[in-house]
Amino acid sequence: MITIEDVMNARLQIADLCKVTPLLHSTLLSKSCGNQLLIKGEHLQKTGAFKLRGAVNKVKTLKSQGVKHVVAASSGNHGQAVAYVAKQLGMEATIVVPETVPRCKEQAIRLYEATVVHRGITSAERINWAKQYCDEVGAALVLPYDDELVMAGQGTIGLELVEQFDEIDTIYVPVGGGGLLAGITIAIKQLKPSIQLIGAEPLLANDTYLSLQEGKRVTIPPSTTLADGLRTNTPGELTFPILQHYLDDMVLISEEEMGAAFYATMLYLKHVVEPSAAIAIAGAMAHPPKGKKIVAIASGGNVDPMVIPQLLQLAQMLN
Amino acid sequence: MITIEDVMNARLQIADLCKVTPLLHSTLLSKSCGNQLLIKGEHLQKTGAFKLRGAVNKVKTLKSQGVKHVVAASSGNHGQAVAYVAKQLGMEATIVVPETVPRCKEQAIRLYEATVVHRGITSAERINWAKQYCDEVGAALVLPYDDELVMAGQGTIGLELVEQFDEIDTIYVPVGGGGLLAGITIAIKQLKPSIQLIGAEPLLANDTYLSLQEGKRVTIPPSTTLADGLRTNTPGELTFPILQHYLDDMVLISEEEMGAAFYATMLYLKHVVEPSAAIAIAGAMAHPPKGKKIVAIASGGNVDPMVIPQLLQLAQMLN
Repeated sequence: MITIEDVMNARLQIADLCKVTPLLHSTLLSKSCGNQLLIKGEHLQKTGAFKLRGAVNKVKTLKSQGVKHVVAASSGNHGQAVAYVAKQLGMEATIVVPETVPRCKEQAIRLYEATVVHRGITSAERINWAKQYCDEVGAALVLPYDDELVMAGQGTIGLELVEQFDEIDTIYVPVGGGGLLAGITIAIKQLKPSIQLIGAEPLLANDTYLSLQEGKRVTIPPSTTLADGLRTNTPGELTFPILQHYLDDMVLISEEEMGAAFYATMLYLKHVVEPSAAIAIAGAMAHPPKGKKIVAIASGGNVDPMVIPQLLQLAQMLN
Repeated sequence: MITIEDVMNARLQIADLCKVTPLLHSTLLSKSCGNQLLIKGEHLQKTGAFKLRGAVNKVKTLKSQGVKHVVAASSGNHGQAVAYVAKQLGMEATIVVPETVPRCKEQAIRLYEATVVHRGITSAERINWAKQYCDEVGAALVLPYDDELVMAGQGTIGLELVEQFDEIDTIYVPVGGGGLLAGITIAIKQLKPSIQLIGAEPLLANDTYLSLQEGKRVTIPPSTTLADGLRTNTPGELTFPILQHYLDDMVLISEEEMGAAFYATMLYLKHVVEPSAAIAIAGAMAHPPKGKKIVAIASGGNVDPMVIPQLLQLAQMLN
């Protein structure tokens, strides 16, 4: 299991390529949920999502080991992050995306001059291909969450939080593979264990919730949640034990609650977050007791514009 | 004509109730327009728009003259601003809105505990009613732009800009009644006349553009632009001479260009601005020579969520 030292080392390693993101506040947003609600703005991170932290920590380490070419199997924020870091470090990057990748996502990856390869439809197909490809060309695969260096990178958010605001009662974190939550959990529970750590998962992709209930990793069918960053169907092998050991609670968020949180963030904070980030904000808005000091991790801001009308409609269904 | 001293006095008067708004930057937004583009974030101003600055300067002065009750005829940002200031200063506020006011706008005004009165449909009907009402109850009318104290309040943005970034080449400002542009123009042209001041107006509400061409105030038919803050049909009596005297240029923005600027701001900056603000950003994105240091005034962030799908569609029409 990673420790606070791993997270502290990650912080030193990522400092030149990642931003310290702001902790955002809106009086009306806090008022609307009866708590002091602060938003950790990872949607303002370079490449638009927290994934950069883990990717920088991992890829820099690979480079120091002599690796010259990195590969990621992700059409989303992780793919963008690996492409960006590789470009900054003068390394080659190959990003494996599904045949069905949306155009806006592919464009974002190409922006950072990575090679884009289209293979298969499912995540399993792509990872298998990517592993074989890495063996053939002597490249290194960068996993999106099930890697200690990646987790430690994401955990740097926890270090920033306790410095930015020393009265936090509760932190809500979106859960996909669990890398973000596991990293933050290690940092927070070893620095300031009184802070409650709560995972927020879509009701339609509740694999971590079910796994924690069963006491072992459970696999669910493919999910249709709009929170595209959280559509994993089973928790990570390395992330899950950390959540089992430390996590205080989980909340499940409906698509309508997610839409309402997206809408409230737009209305009061004037910021655009992606659906996965809205899951954490929805957790903070819907579930806590009153009068607390709460942080929600806005994990990213890369929302497909075509999805925004749907999110606004979902928000209306709740009113 | 107001002077830089009026703007400096306004700055002292509004300091406790208005924010110094940030100057925002995104590398990709700058890249997309070939210039260094900075966004003055008045959408992050309290009440979500620059209108608060002028309203505070005016209403505080009225209070010092013994006025206890203020009236505004506006369902938009000016109405919200007057309601907010009155509440902060412990004064009574009555906001006159059209019978057809959208629910979200009325809610925003009620949030600040003002009395909302529904009268007529056109702006002229409401202003006439409001004037009569003021005479009857001994209240004071707060005009949205054709008032020297209001203009001086808006001009404080100019003072902040030259302190925040001392290498500005050009500033793009949205033009409705002209109060924002006139105020900023006075501040900039008296402090740093080398900076180019450019007004951005919707193609569908080009009254100031036409008036400057004709050399006198022209009245156009009611406009259907989505930029609801810029639907004035003639420039202000007090604002127009300032623009005639000082303004460097005007640009006209199509609805599609406005949509594209809204979309780019969301995509790259992760911020939501209202259509009127997108007009200024569109000016900065579409019109300048390359290699310049440009500021666009994001005048507000109070966008009706029902309009967002339309804005995104307009953006697509341009691609």
